[in-house]
Amino acid sequence: MISKNKLKEFSKYKTSKFCDEDNVFVVEGTKIAAEALQSEFEIVAICALESWFVEYRTLIRKKVSPENTFEVTTAELERISTLKTPNQVWMLIKRQSNNEAFQSETNLTIVLDKIQDPGNLGTIIRTCDWFGIRNIVCSPDTVSCYNSKVVQASMGGIFRTNINYTPLLPFLDSCTNNNTPIYGALLDGENIYNTQLPASNAVLVIGNESKGISDEVIAKITNRLTIPNIGRSCESLNASVANGIICYEFARLNNK
Amino acid sequence: MISKNKLKEFSKYKTSKFCDEDNVFVVEGTKIAAEALQSEFEIVAICALESWFVEYRTLIRKKVSPENTFEVTTAELERISTLKTPNQVWMLIKRQSNNEAFQSETNLTIVLDKIQDPGNLGTIIRTCDWFGIRNIVCSPDTVSCYNSKVVQASMGGIFRTNINYTPLLPFLDSCTNNNTPIYGALLDGENIYNTQLPASNAVLVIGNESKGISDEVIAKITNRLTIPNIGRSCESLNASVANGIICYEFARLNNK
Repeated sequence: MISKNKLKEFSKYKTSKFCDEDNVFVVEGTKIAAEALQSEFEIVAICALESWFVEYRTLIRKKVSPENTFEVTTAELERISTLKTPNQVWMLIKRQSNNEAFQSETNLTIVLDKIQDPGNLGTIIRTCDWFGIRNIVCSPDTVSCYNSKVVQASMGGIFRTNINYTPLLPFLDSCTNNNTPIYGALLDGENIYNTQLPASNAVLVIGNESKGISDEVIAKITNRLTIPNIGRSCESLNASVANGIICYEFARLNNK
Repeated sequence: MISKNKLKEFSKYKTSKFCDEDNVFVVEGTKIAAEALQSEFEIVAICALESWFVEYRTLIRKKVSPENTFEVTTAELERISTLKTPNQVWMLIKRQSNNEAFQSETNLTIVLDKIQDPGNLGTIIRTCDWFGIRNIVCSPDTVSCYNSKVVQASMGGIFRTNINYTPLLPFLDSCTNNNTPIYGALLDGENIYNTQLPASNAVLVIGNESKGISDEVIAKITNRLTIPNIGRSCESLNASVANGIICYEFARLNNK
């Protein structure tokens, strides 16, 4: 059972403004909710159908106190959900400034320069998660990683990556000072098929969907990489596909 | 100038039903419109702002007769557009059954088993275009390649690929009869980093976003490929990222 007041309170989190203010984010659907239950993140509240509570009883008991769980009807779930067809469960989760909380399986850090499409950011997080890349640095004008579409597209990757928003130029300067090579996906770089990538620390910059990497950031890149345009056709690859291919090539070093 | 009747006629193409009936599709925005002007596809009608017509005058004159071009105002463009913010130009284009119209730069054919997300299909077409893969075979329950989101996400790739919708089992049987190896992206296949891919004809099957490749299609696969899950974390890669990585690995053979 859930009171009208609680329903009203939770409904406001459809708006990112209130999520930002309260330092929380929403996840919806059985798959990602199960990942949240197994994550280190603090769950503030759960609204779900009775059947869902029955299925996940044991995991819930370990992690969330009963006064923060609310059994709802399908109609009530529709009222707080941002999905067209809500899927059994809605969760409110505390944001976590995950500074180095996770241990990377690789030495690669991904740097995103103004990624704007939530699907792309979510897919990049998912890909990093797959390849064991735990550190992602975003320019302040990259879409929020707590955007609901980003969270959904990350397929749980949001719970297993350190995502920091910070001005890129000082961050890249600190990399240069540490002799960390800065790779960038550009159209006029070295052919990636012929490039020997380093096993030591490295940074990879992925640029904006339509404008690519900004000029100031390009100036910091030490190693320009290009995925050859065999078809000599479209102007570029999708940002999350380019990221996937280069992460895959770096992960080759970790392949056993 | 455009008449009220014409505006009304064009407005109906917001609905895919009418596009299907008339065997046409819509493209919107300056970038993809410029690609359409340079493609082999027949342009049925153009509605655009005056400034756009001025910019592309020469290309338009070569390809579209004046009675099929309509100068519109921003308000009129909004009426026929499906975009939140229409971008200068709207075009109606004849569908083309592009059977083998384009020459592949590679010997790879992509087979899609029930790809449902328009963004994924568009990105897969864009990636194929990049790597010079011209042949894509889709199961009948794959999202239509003429869906406006697919067309936009393909970034012009729709004009440079042969996309056929056909039942997959007979198609794959014909591949087997021709001794064409059928690769599939699966979770339990051979590690792609250690696999020697063929330079001769090959087929790559990419499965549905949540269910993967269907059992009947899996039964036809001769070479199971896996991109290793270095992070031991999320369940799978995004379909268009997995496609991108494997296409990239096949394209290595064409790298000069």
